[in-house]
Amino acid sequence: MGVKLIEKCESAYTYPLLIKNLLKNSLIRSPDQEIIYRDQMRYTYRDFHIRVAKLANALAGLGVKEGDTVAVMDFDSHRYLECYFAVPMMGAILHTVHIRLSPEQILYTINHAEDDVILVNSELLPLLEPIKDKIETVKKIILIKETDQNPETAIQFDGIYEELLKDASDSFDFPDFDENARATTFYTSGTTGNPKGVYFSHRQLVLHTYGLMTGLCAFDSQAVMTSADVYMPLTPMFHVHAWGMPYLFTMLGNKQIYPGRYEPEMILKLVMGEKVTFSHCVPTIIHMLVNSPVINKVDLSNWKVVIGGSALPRGLCKAATNAKINLYSAYGMSETCPLLTVAHLKPHMYEWDEEKQIDIRCKTGLPIPMVDIEIIDPLGNPVAHDGVQTGEVVARSPWLTQGYLHNQEKSEELWFDGWLHTGDVGSIDAEGYLKITDRLKDVIKTGGEWISSLTLEDIISQHPAVSESAAIGVPDEKWGERPIVLVVLKDEFKEKDLEDELKKVFMEEYEKGNIPKYGVPDRVISVDSIAKTGVGKLDKKVLRVQYAK
Amino acid sequence: MGVKLIEKCESAYTYPLLIKNLLKNSLIRSPDQEIIYRDQMRYTYRDFHIRVAKLANALAGLGVKEGDTVAVMDFDSHRYLECYFAVPMMGAILHTVHIRLSPEQILYTINHAEDDVILVNSELLPLLEPIKDKIETVKKIILIKETDQNPETAIQFDGIYEELLKDASDSFDFPDFDENARATTFYTSGTTGNPKGVYFSHRQLVLHTYGLMTGLCAFDSQAVMTSADVYMPLTPMFHVHAWGMPYLFTMLGNKQIYPGRYEPEMILKLVMGEKVTFSHCVPTIIHMLVNSPVINKVDLSNWKVVIGGSALPRGLCKAATNAKINLYSAYGMSETCPLLTVAHLKPHMYEWDEEKQIDIRCKTGLPIPMVDIEIIDPLGNPVAHDGVQTGEVVARSPWLTQGYLHNQEKSEELWFDGWLHTGDVGSIDAEGYLKITDRLKDVIKTGGEWISSLTLEDIISQHPAVSESAAIGVPDEKWGERPIVLVVLKDEFKEKDLEDELKKVFMEEYEKGNIPKYGVPDRVISVDSIAKTGVGKLDKKVLRVQYAK
Repeated sequence: MGVKLIEKCESAYTYPLLIKNLLKNSLIRSPDQEIIYRDQMRYTYRDFHIRVAKLANALAGLGVKEGDTVAVMDFDSHRYLECYFAVPMMGAILHTVHIRLSPEQILYTINHAEDDVILVNSELLPLLEPIKDKIETVKKIILIKETDQNPETAIQFDGIYEELLKDASDSFDFPDFDENARATTFYTSGTTGNPKGVYFSHRQLVLHTYGLMTGLCAFDSQAVMTSADVYMPLTPMFHVHAWGMPYLFTMLGNKQIYPGRYEPEMILKLVMGEKVTFSHCVPTIIHMLVNSPVINKVDLSNWKVVIGGSALPRGLCKAATNAKINLYSAYGMSETCPLLTVAHLKPHMYEWDEEKQIDIRCKTGLPIPMVDIEIIDPLGNPVAHDGVQTGEVVARSPWLTQGYLHNQEKSEELWFDGWLHTGDVGSIDAEGYLKITDRLKDVIKTGGEWISSLTLEDIISQHPAVSESAAIGVPDEKWGERPIVLVVLKDEFKEKDLEDELKKVFMEEYEKGNIPKYGVPDRVISVDSIAKTGVGKLDKKVLRVQYAK
Repeated sequence: MGVKLIEKCESAYTYPLLIKNLLKNSLIRSPDQEIIYRDQMRYTYRDFHIRVAKLANALAGLGVKEGDTVAVMDFDSHRYLECYFAVPMMGAILHTVHIRLSPEQILYTINHAEDDVILVNSELLPLLEPIKDKIETVKKIILIKETDQNPETAIQFDGIYEELLKDASDSFDFPDFDENARATTFYTSGTTGNPKGVYFSHRQLVLHTYGLMTGLCAFDSQAVMTSADVYMPLTPMFHVHAWGMPYLFTMLGNKQIYPGRYEPEMILKLVMGEKVTFSHCVPTIIHMLVNSPVINKVDLSNWKVVIGGSALPRGLCKAATNAKINLYSAYGMSETCPLLTVAHLKPHMYEWDEEKQIDIRCKTGLPIPMVDIEIIDPLGNPVAHDGVQTGEVVARSPWLTQGYLHNQEKSEELWFDGWLHTGDVGSIDAEGYLKITDRLKDVIKTGGEWISSLTLEDIISQHPAVSESAAIGVPDEKWGERPIVLVVLKDEFKEKDLEDELKKVFMEEYEKGNIPKYGVPDRVISVDSIAKTGVGKLDKKVLRVQYAK
């Protein structure tokens, strides 16, 4: 006899996990709370609910129906948030277009996702113009403009966002449908070949919202997040739904601020002016802020920031702590919706000294409930949780992408043996904390041994002259690869020749027993800037080409 | 074209919403945190995980397999918590036997649920002995005993709980299965006819856990619950899984205290000794505590208590506030898993004076996200949210029982027109707060008008002489029904004849325009005690018989 399924009463209403069910409550709980776009727009949740209904009516009027795909090319804004809800709530699919890809790559994603409609900000038209004649499935293009001026362009528009909303009815009967319906699609920048599309269902986005809540609201009694927090995302809305956070903060009815482009002055102005208390970003943004001239003039002690996307270098963590910013490291990726782990301290660590606490905060943290994490060796066997042995990080959870869109081969590489293979290398310590030591493809392989590029970056990031760093492996006839380290020096050290001194730092770490002899880089090279990807991560693929011997 | 379901990769692992997936994380996060039973037992989550595996092995050794039903008759304990996890995690169904029913009613539930195994505390054998020969499907009975003594009984046991665990293997490979598998069943006391069985699936219990987290962790920035709280339930574990709270606190890895029986001295001893910060109970328990002689000797200012099961009378809310207990009203019922609403203050109410805040705290609150609440008139039309008009409260949510077990007729009465009909009467005000004014069947119907029995109780509960009260309708030839009010006076007023004075209180409320003339009760009767149901609610069915003219 198997498990007994529950008896369903004929008349019983089944309540599917749909995005519309995340939205409803905010209208009861905080109808007068504000949603804000830069210094340009502020309105209430009451208005937001109306505009979501109007947008759905406008899209329906353009012919959008269940199963269609609506692409958005916009900066982080209240409009984007409207699309996060209206499009999937209609039963359509939201394609958040990666606007930092090249026009040719964007074209690929638009055709591959089979977009039916595109909403495009007038400032992003230069991305669309060169490809407009090669777009295959798009039937309508809607212009988003923030001024009265009409853009000069050869593109024909089928409507203007604000005018469509103005004319639309303010009530829409959002349907019920299968919670496994696809809600969103977006493309990873992809280090080789074409961008790959990941996709998430309503069910997955709802469960991920609960996962975020577990990670942010339940565990850290020192800095818990509540509906009284003021939220501003600092990771782009086209990328993994801004980590899914807008869904959580809308469900809870929080005050939300959308900053448009990421300019340090505007960000700091909004943080101070709107009393922002909660954000999330990649380390690059924090690096930009702590190096901004105004950083010492502002009080950031009420600002909690979750860091992800790349490892948090120890030096940057210290600099942020000095600026009184409360940083929390988290871990995930496009394929994982994204949240997998958050670097909370366990209660017994509250008493630890600051250095030991920073050790924890720079790790990627503990898996949140409903996430299983394991570290496996190349044969697929789990490795010991001793904080030393490394292997590929694999994950299970209800909110991981089921695969890459229309790409069976890559999907099967991603999902293997019942686990999602992250392509990251890491270790788990006896307390259960995950530490990512590298991307599988960024590991430096020298003489049959592995060196973690992140370990080398961590070491050099703490030197007082160093602003940014990147460790890569470059081809070597004898050893296969050898490590080199690129550094950007702080302005006041720019003129100095510190390459030998910085190399000595690694020798000292070797002498202390912290890294093996073969881990000492052959060269430390001072450079003006380090190549980054569209979402602000070090672009090691490019760096490896640039600095190949 | 319909909605597009997500493409499933052949190899993709699906991660079902199973109770085992709630449990895992605590072993990483707080393996050394404690679970405590009275002053008799304390062990860690590490031990708990081992004992859950041992229990599953022990039950499997007794022949329990997927789809079987395991009944538990025990007091609130670590053992009960072990059953909450081990039994459903095996794919079996946990029947939490309502031990305050009569033996005949218990017999009915055991046969109706088709129990295969019963675990019974030696002190509860008197409930089982009179019915042992009429039990139909039970194959094994396991004895739970807390002393070395063997009970004198004619019942033959197939094992002893602790001995079975001692001999069992400490690892069990809990299977994956459909998240819609039935996990639990229990019986409502039922005011007429046989007890009715409600049932919940793994999916429902997991989603309800997230619902509880939303209600307790996210909204109240004044008193948010975190994993640092120390939890002790004060609603019985046989009843709606102690409101599902043990699942939440186990997921978060909190310190948990199980008090066994509900004796005021033991409760206060545990609250103080173990530094309990979070509990939940029916108003009766708070009434018992604030009237306990030791209440003034203890500091309860760190204790947050969620009140549910019955309306929170205003007088009791004030008394608890005076004793520095932080009370929060919540609302739900057996059929709803149970949580539907929590009486959080909205941020703009934090500045209100205490009287107005108590108004809110005594309401049943705002629906939590993923719960829809409506108030309908007898024709099924929604009534205005003006805080005045009343109707039946209906609900939708992913965690409501699909019906009554093996009872199609009652299930169809429960679920009608796509909504679960609660049988409660209430109003919703302009801020969205639900206020329950009565049970549909407890409403006093006089001369074609309705009087809320809770309103009458609320009025009289604030009189300094009144300890407890119950308003009921008694048959009246002319008016159909007329209200009467029963009161238990505080000890120091016991000898006084206050019936006329108390009746005057209602006249004054009428004169102030707070109740209609026909709402003034015909009599106020001072009684020694008021009949209650097995879970501590006023038993108005019994009272109506007792006090019929």
